[in-house]
Amino acid sequence: MAKKLTILMFSGDYDKALAALILANSAKEMGVDVTMFYAFWGLLLLRDPEKMTLDEKSVYAKMFGIVTPNGPEELPLSKMNMAGLGKKMLQEMMKDVEAPSLTDFLKGARKKGIIFSACKLSVDVMGFKKEELLPEVQIITAQDYLQNALEADMQIFI
Amino acid sequence: MAKKLTILMFSGDYDKALAALILANSAKEMGVDVTMFYAFWGLLLLRDPEKMTLDEKSVYAKMFGIVTPNGPEELPLSKMNMAGLGKKMLQEMMKDVEAPSLTDFLKGARKKGIIFSACKLSVDVMGFKKEELLPEVQIITAQDYLQNALEADMQIFI
Amino acid sequence: MAKKLTILMFSGDYDKALAALILANSAKEMGVDVTMFYAFWGLLLLRDPEKMTLDEKSVYAKMFGIVTPNGPEELPLSKMNMAGLGKKMLQEMMKDVEAPSLTDFLKGARKKGIIFSACKLSVDVMGFKKEELLPEVQIITAQDYLQNALEADMQIFI
Repeated sequence: MAKKLTILMFSGDYDKALAALILANSAKEMGVDVTMFYAFWGLLLLRDPEKMTLDEKSVYAKMFGIVTPNGPEELPLSKMNMAGLGKKMLQEMMKDVEAPSLTDFLKGARKKGIIFSACKLSVDVMGFKKEELLPEVQIITAQDYLQNALEADMQIFI
Repeated sequence: MAKKLTILMFSGDYDKALAALILANSAKEMGVDVTMFYAFWGLLLLRDPEKMTLDEKSVYAKMFGIVTPNGPEELPLSKMNMAGLGKKMLQEMMKDVEAPSLTDFLKGARKKGIIFSACKLSVDVMGFKKEELLPEVQIITAQDYLQNALEADMQIFI
Repeated sequence: MAKKLTILMFSGDYDKALAALILANSAKEMGVDVTMFYAFWGLLLLRDPEKMTLDEKSVYAKMFGIVTPNGPEELPLSKMNMAGLGKKMLQEMMKDVEAPSLTDFLKGARKKGIIFSACKLSVDVMGFKKEELLPEVQIITAQDYLQNALEADMQIFI
């Protein structure tokens, strides 16, 4: 029977998203069942930059939608971001060794059939609409996630 | 036999404390045994704002007691705190969807019988006294925590 | 059979490195097999301050080598670092209760036979050379780490 890995992605940092997606892709390539559960800042990675809307949102949800990063490549580094300079440097260093970008790892994860889910409470609080997220994202509760995670061989919180 | 979840709460951020307590409460409602082990900044969540004292503390422990947040509602956000403005915004967004507050989740966890423990070394280093923490908190060592966590079905570090 | 713990050390913060090494040392003393896998900022803990070099590095890797902390004692705090003042305060508070320093915990872990490994992709991206890291560090892939972690009793991401 296949091993099972669940990743709770809380953080919205570029470098932590990279770490999570590298683990997820690597595990999936080994035949492991991988589920990612995005909550809080993690949801920013699942927004489709083409599909953002301000319609029918509360004042705060509108403001929040505007001030937060639009899609994966706009996420900041958790350390040494230095107004984007540190991130630019990291991206150049990744190119130097021909490492795939965050967007590449995200595409890879989607193509490989890694399951993407989003925390219902976080989606509600942030005022996101289902249509603003990548189309395959399932919106589930913390209990749905836990049910799955408690049966997994490995669970990480990033 | 009941499943078992242990959460090592290292962080002292408002949003991460929310995530931890939402997971803890959700799991407990599902019949899972939940133990939370608070260390380092996480201890700031366990301080009872009514019971803080400066008596019999070293100079550094006194300073530390004064400059750190007094109780759960004073914790900052891990991201976009913007001197409290970002947190205020998050709190308003939570009210908009009638989500419980951090204090509500903490009360819920205490009522449901989630086990609260604190790391002895952290308590000693930060110069906290047992009386400054919520009364049910057990002060235990990292080894006590590990003994329990190694037998659990799921362990997370937040 | 011995229990098994794996720690993925992503963070390069002084306080988080302390937490990771306290857990690792405590577990090892209990007879648990402990493997630490250092990635991204975590690698900064494994650099030998005596052995840093700029030879044969790309421009970005050189810059990166210069602006990042040189060895464990230079790592910043994740919170309240305040240009090093907060860290100095924490270090004094640790001395007050005679707690070992980060360097002590690192030495302890090495002496006890805790396995140190480093993420190959991170090492390549950051442009580190094997000779710049502590001599016993094994450079392995994310899949090597996962193979091991999926069989462990407990896995944490710090």
